[in-house]
Amino acid sequence: MADEVILLDVLVSAVGMRVRIALREKGIEFDWRAEDLSNKSPLLLKMNPVNKLIPVLIHNGKPVCESLIIVQYIDEVWKDRTPLLPSDPYERAHARFWADYVDKKIISTGRQVVCTAEGETQEAAKKELRQWFKTLEGELGDKPYFGGKTFGLVDIALIPFYSWFPSLETYGNLSMEAEFPKIVAWGKRCLKKESVSQTLPDQRKMHDFIVGIRKKVGL
Amino acid sequence: MADEVILLDVLVSAVGMRVRIALREKGIEFDWRAEDLSNKSPLLLKMNPVNKLIPVLIHNGKPVCESLIIVQYIDEVWKDRTPLLPSDPYERAHARFWADYVDKKIISTGRQVVCTAEGETQEAAKKELRQWFKTLEGELGDKPYFGGKTFGLVDIALIPFYSWFPSLETYGNLSMEAEFPKIVAWGKRCLKKESVSQTLPDQRKMHDFIVGIRKKVGL
Repeated sequence: MADEVILLDVLVSAVGMRVRIALREKGIEFDWRAEDLSNKSPLLLKMNPVNKLIPVLIHNGKPVCESLIIVQYIDEVWKDRTPLLPSDPYERAHARFWADYVDKKIISTGRQVVCTAEGETQEAAKKELRQWFKTLEGELGDKPYFGGKTFGLVDIALIPFYSWFPSLETYGNLSMEAEFPKIVAWGKRCLKKESVSQTLPDQRKMHDFIVGIRKKVGL
Repeated sequence: MADEVILLDVLVSAVGMRVRIALREKGIEFDWRAEDLSNKSPLLLKMNPVNKLIPVLIHNGKPVCESLIIVQYIDEVWKDRTPLLPSDPYERAHARFWADYVDKKIISTGRQVVCTAEGETQEAAKKELRQWFKTLEGELGDKPYFGGKTFGLVDIALIPFYSWFPSLETYGNLSMEAEFPKIVAWGKRCLKKESVSQTLPDQRKMHDFIVGIRKKVGL
């Protein structure tokens, strides 16, 4: 029996993009289903009753939740195709550490920078975000990918935020290319991969979307 | 050559306890080194320059950071001894989801309940904590362990907080035994394991320690 793979997702979701990229890297066909977060589907509520969040991967009827856990699941199930995590336990722990770093630092601080009002908290968030990217620039160093020679878990964790760069520049006072040239070159390199270019929205479109969100919340 | 395993840790740290329990479950000898967080050792700063936090496991000179990542690393390196994660990818994802749940929900809300002043935020934290434990009580159900028949990752993630129960009752208005009888029975069951009883501080001692911390910060 062929695998049935359904992805409950939202088009502009960075965490949803991670899962799409992982599935495309592995060449797995999937049934992509858009969720409306203001009116969640009964399937989403049934499949992720604890957090009620996207993305949810439903593989042969069974749900897997949380983007980085889903990417690791995909890597373990389809282990004979393009590996996303290294085989060495030490390198795996290293990849998990940095993916977790992106998850804990970039998402919340990035959101705060682009989607909250000016003020002390936003000033602090801008400073933090600059620090997180500086640390990531150091970790990337002269490697082509965070995973070394091959694209992997950390790259998948971070690359969706490449679409946010113009918004981070506008609202975060960052000059991505001047301050983090290695990260920007890495982003362009990742975009040459079909799995990434097929998934990421154009930076300009993403910026327009964020401008729209800001207007909605009165910023 | 025998493995050299060093653990940089703090005795009362719940996340540090996770690593000690995992090492003891596997029967791995380790050199336990106490850190003073008000005066961090050069070794800690060198081994975890990004977060500068304990626990850090140093295995043959190489550092692994973040408690749940360390537990998975230990399971992958010493895979021939007592497994801590299931072998099936779906069950592994399920275990990772619940360990992550404990990590994101119980630690921060638990700290807030026992270590902050009364007020609206604390009232909200108390309500949340009751909800998180209710969800965990449901997930445990009638299984002896979160991992099913065997003690594993989720059990390791949560069990250190068993020592906090008297403090959660005192400052969080919870009646653990009456409200969450399955979790309390599970805690007692885990304590029969030598890896756990050797690691967890006595609940009364932990409570006295928390009372001391509260006095220090003027609560």
